[in-house]
Amino acid sequence: MELVFMIPLAGLAAVFYAAYLAWDVLRRDPGTPEMQEVAGMIFEGAMAFLKRQYTTIAIFALITAVAIAIIVGAVSDGVKDIIKEGSGGNITIGYSPNAVVDHWEEGVLTGIAFLVGAAASALAGYIGMFIAVRSNSRTASAATRSLKEAITVALRGGAVSGFLVVALSLLGVSTIFFIYSAVLGNPDAIAPFLIVGFGFGASFVALFAQLGGGIYTKAADVGADLVGKVEAGIPEDDPRNAAVVADLVGDNVGDCAGRGADLFESMSAENIGAMILGVAIYTVTQDVEWIIFPLVLRSFGVFATMAGLTSVPFFASDDPNQNPMTPLNYGYYIVCALSVVGLLIVMLGDEWYWFFFCGLVGIATGIAFVYITQYYTSGAWRPVRDIAEASRTGPATNIIIGTAVGLETTAATAITIGIALVASFALGSEADIPGVGGFTTGVFGTAVATMGMLMSAAYILAMDTFGPITDNAGGITEFSGAPESARHITDSLDSVGNTTKALTKGFAVASAGLAAFLLFSAYLDKVKERLNVPLNKELPIDISDVDVFAGGLLGAMLVFLFSSFAIRAVGNAASKIIEEVRRQFREDPGIMAGTSRPDYARAVDITASAALREMIAPGVLAVGMPIVVGLIFRYVRGDNDGWLAVAGLLMIGTITGILLATFFNNVGGAWDNAKKYIEAGNLKTESANPGAVEVLGKGTDAHKAAVVGDTVGDPFKDTAGPSLHVLIKLLSTITLVMAPLFIP
Amino acid sequence: MELVFMIPLAGLAAVFYAAYLAWDVLRRDPGTPEMQEVAGMIFEGAMAFLKRQYTTIAIFALITAVAIAIIVGAVSDGVKDIIKEGSGGNITIGYSPNAVVDHWEEGVLTGIAFLVGAAASALAGYIGMFIAVRSNSRTASAATRSLKEAITVALRGGAVSGFLVVALSLLGVSTIFFIYSAVLGNPDAIAPFLIVGFGFGASFVALFAQLGGGIYTKAADVGADLVGKVEAGIPEDDPRNAAVVADLVGDNVGDCAGRGADLFESMSAENIGAMILGVAIYTVTQDVEWIIFPLVLRSFGVFATMAGLTSVPFFASDDPNQNPMTPLNYGYYIVCALSVVGLLIVMLGDEWYWFFFCGLVGIATGIAFVYITQYYTSGAWRPVRDIAEASRTGPATNIIIGTAVGLETTAATAITIGIALVASFALGSEADIPGVGGFTTGVFGTAVATMGMLMSAAYILAMDTFGPITDNAGGITEFSGAPESARHITDSLDSVGNTTKALTKGFAVASAGLAAFLLFSAYLDKVKERLNVPLNKELPIDISDVDVFAGGLLGAMLVFLFSSFAIRAVGNAASKIIEEVRRQFREDPGIMAGTSRPDYARAVDITASAALREMIAPGVLAVGMPIVVGLIFRYVRGDNDGWLAVAGLLMIGTITGILLATFFNNVGGAWDNAKKYIEAGNLKTESANPGAVEVLGKGTDAHKAAVVGDTVGDPFKDTAGPSLHVLIKLLSTITLVMAPLFIP
Repeated sequence: MELVFMIPLAGLAAVFYAAYLAWDVLRRDPGTPEMQEVAGMIFEGAMAFLKRQYTTIAIFALITAVAIAIIVGAVSDGVKDIIKEGSGGNITIGYSPNAVVDHWEEGVLTGIAFLVGAAASALAGYIGMFIAVRSNSRTASAATRSLKEAITVALRGGAVSGFLVVALSLLGVSTIFFIYSAVLGNPDAIAPFLIVGFGFGASFVALFAQLGGGIYTKAADVGADLVGKVEAGIPEDDPRNAAVVADLVGDNVGDCAGRGADLFESMSAENIGAMILGVAIYTVTQDVEWIIFPLVLRSFGVFATMAGLTSVPFFASDDPNQNPMTPLNYGYYIVCALSVVGLLIVMLGDEWYWFFFCGLVGIATGIAFVYITQYYTSGAWRPVRDIAEASRTGPATNIIIGTAVGLETTAATAITIGIALVASFALGSEADIPGVGGFTTGVFGTAVATMGMLMSAAYILAMDTFGPITDNAGGITEFSGAPESARHITDSLDSVGNTTKALTKGFAVASAGLAAFLLFSAYLDKVKERLNVPLNKELPIDISDVDVFAGGLLGAMLVFLFSSFAIRAVGNAASKIIEEVRRQFREDPGIMAGTSRPDYARAVDITASAALREMIAPGVLAVGMPIVVGLIFRYVRGDNDGWLAVAGLLMIGTITGILLATFFNNVGGAWDNAKKYIEAGNLKTESANPGAVEVLGKGTDAHKAAVVGDTVGDPFKDTAGPSLHVLIKLLSTITLVMAPLFIP
Repeated sequence: MELVFMIPLAGLAAVFYAAYLAWDVLRRDPGTPEMQEVAGMIFEGAMAFLKRQYTTIAIFALITAVAIAIIVGAVSDGVKDIIKEGSGGNITIGYSPNAVVDHWEEGVLTGIAFLVGAAASALAGYIGMFIAVRSNSRTASAATRSLKEAITVALRGGAVSGFLVVALSLLGVSTIFFIYSAVLGNPDAIAPFLIVGFGFGASFVALFAQLGGGIYTKAADVGADLVGKVEAGIPEDDPRNAAVVADLVGDNVGDCAGRGADLFESMSAENIGAMILGVAIYTVTQDVEWIIFPLVLRSFGVFATMAGLTSVPFFASDDPNQNPMTPLNYGYYIVCALSVVGLLIVMLGDEWYWFFFCGLVGIATGIAFVYITQYYTSGAWRPVRDIAEASRTGPATNIIIGTAVGLETTAATAITIGIALVASFALGSEADIPGVGGFTTGVFGTAVATMGMLMSAAYILAMDTFGPITDNAGGITEFSGAPESARHITDSLDSVGNTTKALTKGFAVASAGLAAFLLFSAYLDKVKERLNVPLNKELPIDISDVDVFAGGLLGAMLVFLFSSFAIRAVGNAASKIIEEVRRQFREDPGIMAGTSRPDYARAVDITASAALREMIAPGVLAVGMPIVVGLIFRYVRGDNDGWLAVAGLLMIGTITGILLATFFNNVGGAWDNAKKYIEAGNLKTESANPGAVEVLGKGTDAHKAAVVGDTVGDPFKDTAGPSLHVLIKLLSTITLVMAPLFIP
């Protein structure tokens, strides 16, 4: 395929572009000495946490890699080549009689791929966060000068992370594919099955990174708020609160490192899944483009994103009252438009237009989610206003109406994903490739849609990391006593940051929803290989089979139980922080008087330890339960029931996970913005006499009620919700890698 | 089958027993004139609401019945007889070439069955509630004398409802079966398919009864609490609160009429589903016992329940400090033990022991749920204590930890249902009936398990109605200024009533979970008939088919959206009540001073109107969405995609619904009891010095936080959760009846 050169080109271009952006951000004014001092504390805290977190994850990952190598090596039959049999209208895609990759070699290669995926994910998170925590004081400093400069710095800082994540995924997957096929001399058709470990490694790190980071950030946030705002009555980000630095550190480790790992694994796992689906078509057509197509498409996405990002400053005006969302939206449209062009260039087969339409469906889905999320979580529309109104009668009605709004948001999500899946499947199945059935091209169509959507991933991720950078910049401005005008700019950026963070979550859910179907099909392809069912034949997973149904019930339950663990973890960790801040207030009265400084480092340290301890239980549950269910059903019920129960668990766990994650993300965002809506003075007393109308702003009972909602939403939207995205994809990758355990 | 005489015998026995209980309750002392006055207001309010509600439902039901008759008549091909083909090991259960029931006749019979089911459900609810609201003042009066008498009156009042529900379901299903088979001269094998309308009618009424009642009760409760306890600072059930009578009325229309309709439809719909599953075995064996078996088994359940109920007073002691749960538990054990005996008597086929074990699994599942619910919602164990502890740091942590606990409770539920399903299927499939496959007997095994569990339904329902009666008795005691000792007894009964209400919900969820599988299989049997697939062949519903998957996504979404509507309905209705109570306080200062009485009737009336208006949207969503999805997929995607999408919607909607209902029920119960735990003085300040330890009881911040949790939990546990049980079963019955719409 002539466009294959695009892959290394785009990967390297992304690295260089990220390096340029990093250089550009770092050369800027790091702000006043006070700003630099706070930024320094945040930097130290964030890096220290990341180091400890990655050390823990590295140990788990090493053990898991060895376990994978041993388990796959011991139970697999090795990998057979995939070959075309028959001709004309009667083609079946079967397997060679003997394995071309020995089972121990398969185990070792899978284990190595797992480690490479895990390391790449960790590296992307580390470097991205390194730049992000260097950008915050520079954004704060820029805010003392102009909105335009502040947007530019924050977005470029965020884009470093975005581009590195994309580059490492692109280069990582393509390199390991190249090595496992060409270098080791394995057939192209089986290489995608050998590199599934890469996706598992990526999701493994993502799970713990998101859990640890999510628990850290929200435990610090909830703890700081409860002990500061509620108990001591001091404002947010007040330097007298010992937990305030931990809170600022949390924004980075949760939103920045966590979400980076999340999207890294989306891109990697969904890429590999799409490659596996391409194998059937490749076997018939013998064009390797069907396998590496996702990588090529993503390469064009890199260039589209570069153009979009570069354009943002041109749309930003010097008016400090411009809505910062406007230039970001324009940039996003440019990315989408150029992605369409990219889709047109990467033509596949004679009937390429069907797949082109599938790609359009994916891009449109991404745009739809950007609007759905904004509608449900921004103060400009009914949902958030309803919650703000309900705050008049106290915290209970705020929570009740908020819950109703959150549950309602799943409708738009499910309908959009449903339409996207059915449409891309229907379009794909129209493509007539002789010897390949409509079912196979249909599933491939959903893969193209997923890839189309992910073309803008680097841009979305840049906007996401924009969130913690501006949040931190606001904190630094407050903390360092910068002028009011700078605070005005960072407040406006911070509010946009909340929206962009919500968008990213919507985007991640949508990509997980689209990808669920393709990753499930990849799992079935793996099952087919082991059961010797031709790749282009359907292998029905009958939901009226009791094992599939029971597996599905357990899969849905896993999603609920995992969320319970994640939310409780935040509660547990927050209580440790509350105790510490209380202790500091009690033991040193000078802190409250403002004459002595609290011990920020100790609070940071306690938060880190608590978060690392609390991430273990949900992490182990997520990794362990699919395996345990598969083994129990296989050995208690029968040989064929293990993989069936796992299929049910995977599929119904995914559906439930998409909806529950949507609920958690959106309800949390809506509660947060209902609070901001009230703080902005939009809620007024009701009175027939216009002169007697008063603003129900900060400090009123309505505001206190909204703060309760906001606090409840914190672990929902920043711990449980994002961890669920990762869980969904982890279920797919773990079942792909561990499939031989469940199949006779 | 020689035991068929048991069905009318048990039905009539249940009616006479209910009449005896009603007579026994009504002849007792109705209490002081003050008590009778309040009871009179409750009676009037409850009956007025029921009348208006049933009028609304009757209109909807009539329209629906006509629509069913027309739609089924127009699109169905009529009903073909089911006949055995082949012999020996090669039997298929096919269909006669021509319909034996014409399609218009099928439509009319289905419509009539729908109306009969709807009327029977309404009648059961009406009479049961009539007695319940007559029992409350009698229980209050009995409480001035002894705990034992109070338990006896409350339980007998509740049992009237329980026995009538069982009797009407038993007599209704058996009579319509008898008429549609023997009287009309139709083959026994097709009669179960003709009476599916009965189940739909029952679930139709149950949906609106539960929604209307659930919205009424919680809107009144939340409204009364917010405006009374929070705003005006007056205690619960204080006569100065205009909404207090509406609150007491609500307990009856929600818990009593609503839950009665819920279990009526469980028994009816699951019965009919089980009869459909028996058709395949009947066709091979020609023993009609396989079809009417569920009815016979339930007849034995009636007698077992009578014995258990009669025994309760013997276990109640005269000690006012006895835990009232103890005699209730003993009675339940007697019911279960006698149910086992009943199972042994109703032997089925030569390998009856396999089905006997299936029945045992069902009974054991019921018992397991009684304990699971108690563990998660009673103050004696960790979950509720954790929530109470979290209340120390305010409402936000109360909600966060409560949510974590609620999500956690789904694990025990899903695992228990999963084990019960797999075990009963595995046991059933061991039964070797020549010519019938293991799949068919396996599914029949799950039906036997469901029926085994439902044998104790009348007892469970009696305990449930015990809840609102004792709740009302407490309110009447408070309201009428009865002595402290009586209040002590009603408080203790009320607390048990909370537990028994929670148990019933657990029982309803478990029965819905077990029944999901059998009702789904019944839907597939209907599809098979239409597609001419032999009844004893599997018809796989492939979850990796894009239409099934998308249907599943929409089914899960329906559950979330329906819950959103139900919860929001409570919020909307509550705001109307708050406005009214505020208006009364404002316009008549004498109310607060205690010199004049509020206008209770007006508050009752406003609550009723609001509840009736708010039940429409979720009701229409539940009934409309399966039909709309089926039609869209059939006409947009293709002929075979309609019923596939509906199958996905049904199955995955059911799984998600079971888990979400469990969450709502248990989190609400746990929040309620965490508040009660604090009110009982179990939460104390932490201090190293034992002398300085203080109780954090009523009026403290911790208690206020717990009240927020309790209020949030109200619409969860009494509106959304119970309505979801009904929704799950409605999905099954509506798809059964409307199947011809979705199938070419």
